[in-house]
Amino acid sequence: MACEDEPPEKHCWVCFATEKEDRAAEWVSPCRCKGCTKWIHQACLQRWLDEKQKGNSGGTVSCPQCGTEYSIVFPKTGPLVYFLQQVDRALSRASPFAAAGVVVGTVYWSAVTYGAVTVMQVVGHKKGLDVMERADPLFLLMGLPTIPVMLVLGKMIRWEDYVVRLWQRHSSKLQIFNGLVPGMGRSLPRIPVEGSYGGDHLSVSRTLCGALVFPSVANLVGRLLFRRVTSNLQRTILGGIAFVVMKGVLKVYFKQQQYLIQANRHILNFPLPEGRADGNIEDSNDDSSNE
Amino acid sequence: MACEDEPPEKHCWVCFATEKEDRAAEWVSPCRCKGCTKWIHQACLQRWLDEKQKGNSGGTVSCPQCGTEYSIVFPKTGPLVYFLQQVDRALSRASPFAAAGVVVGTVYWSAVTYGAVTVMQVVGHKKGLDVMERADPLFLLMGLPTIPVMLVLGKMIRWEDYVVRLWQRHSSKLQIFNGLVPGMGRSLPRIPVEGSYGGDHLSVSRTLCGALVFPSVANLVGRLLFRRVTSNLQRTILGGIAFVVMKGVLKVYFKQQQYLIQANRHILNFPLPEGRADGNIEDSNDDSSNE
Repeated sequence: MACEDEPPEKHCWVCFATEKEDRAAEWVSPCRCKGCTKWIHQACLQRWLDEKQKGNSGGTVSCPQCGTEYSIVFPKTGPLVYFLQQVDRALSRASPFAAAGVVVGTVYWSAVTYGAVTVMQVVGHKKGLDVMERADPLFLLMGLPTIPVMLVLGKMIRWEDYVVRLWQRHSSKLQIFNGLVPGMGRSLPRIPVEGSYGGDHLSVSRTLCGALVFPSVANLVGRLLFRRVTSNLQRTILGGIAFVVMKGVLKVYFKQQQYLIQANRHILNFPLPEGRADGNIEDSNDDSSNE
Repeated sequence: MACEDEPPEKHCWVCFATEKEDRAAEWVSPCRCKGCTKWIHQACLQRWLDEKQKGNSGGTVSCPQCGTEYSIVFPKTGPLVYFLQQVDRALSRASPFAAAGVVVGTVYWSAVTYGAVTVMQVVGHKKGLDVMERADPLFLLMGLPTIPVMLVLGKMIRWEDYVVRLWQRHSSKLQIFNGLVPGMGRSLPRIPVEGSYGGDHLSVSRTLCGALVFPSVANLVGRLLFRRVTSNLQRTILGGIAFVVMKGVLKVYFKQQQYLIQANRHILNFPLPEGRADGNIEDSNDDSSNE
């Protein structure tokens, strides 16, 4: 496309019009390009620039052929416009941080409220209000939001996994349990890969919901199992411990079973339509493994 | 790699061992493959499956050569394990929704609190508390969170843009303003593209923060400008109106100036090192545009 020699009269590389066709048009040679791509109408270049900038009026644009950055000048502005420009820029820069602050504030405030509700749930509605009214406000603003944080952190301690691992390591020594848990004593055909059994991954949503619902569950279990305990606090703590222990035992059992299921999985032969000799031999193999 | 004829003795396509090398090993032919890729050790296939499943023990795996899905069987489980499996699955499925509920609840509760704070700010601390105590709790739980929602929706109405557009459309008829705003009467060298001037985009963080800070600003402006008004509510409303009008006028002025700046931008010639004839002519053009 590019021609070396400059043609006798200017012509615009956007609209292909020559100097003679529009005597009033303003011409510009904005880059290092020579020859037939040297000249362009100011108006054509402006349109092309608009397209390249895509709404970002401050963006730089370069010549696609020689790479020279076009030098764009703007009329000078008054002090008020300059001031408004600076204010606009400062607000644009500050607003993401302010929005982040709003989000943090929202989470914090909800954590405070959750903490207060939990205190009332654990020690009883009236006593909880009394305790919080007598406490130092600063202590409340620091202490109450740590309640949900502690619950989530506590929920992240997966002690059942350690128990399962310990069990698996010392299963040969724990012969007394073999009667209790089916398939415990048998030697395993294979060791399943870590994490392939029983959803070993830490789910964020499950941890969060489990942690937040725990005080209510502890309260409920306490009311069901320890009706004779009169103190609200003691009853909820006992209920919480009972729930954690019961859930832990079920989880350890479940994980151990999942482990055994994975350890005893078996891949079947592809069923052969014709009763071939080798196929039949392998079929009998499958039967023995399916016992 | 694949050989058509089945070799005289089985050999595993993973570990290349033959039947003679390990008489005890279990063999399996899990897919439609024939020839030398027909047989594999059960143990080798299990290892290969673990690698392909990457911890997802329920995932299906197919033969990379013939595409047959391997049929994996698991030992049968008791009713308790089945029940626990169902509970685990139900919890995993429900937890994202529960977590979404927690997020919605957090936002809702913060909106209620923000609404209550705003009511106290606008009508005064003591009177605000009185009003809210006397109101129906259901009405408060529905009404208070709509306050921030309304503020954000109100902030999203960009009336200044309409005023600017109206102004630009009828600028020739508004000759009286030409003295007030510099560069208004002149005919523009070009029409800037929509959205290229003055941050026309709707920033989420700026809209949110602007909306949430508005009652405080209205209160402050009311206290500064309308000290003689005794009613807290009236003073804050007057302050809010004054702030919106002042900000609107500045914004319209700023946008109009940004429009003019973009309309009057000019692209300069590339400076020529030697004083060539055509270069000089264009240089003089630049000077006239920089006035």
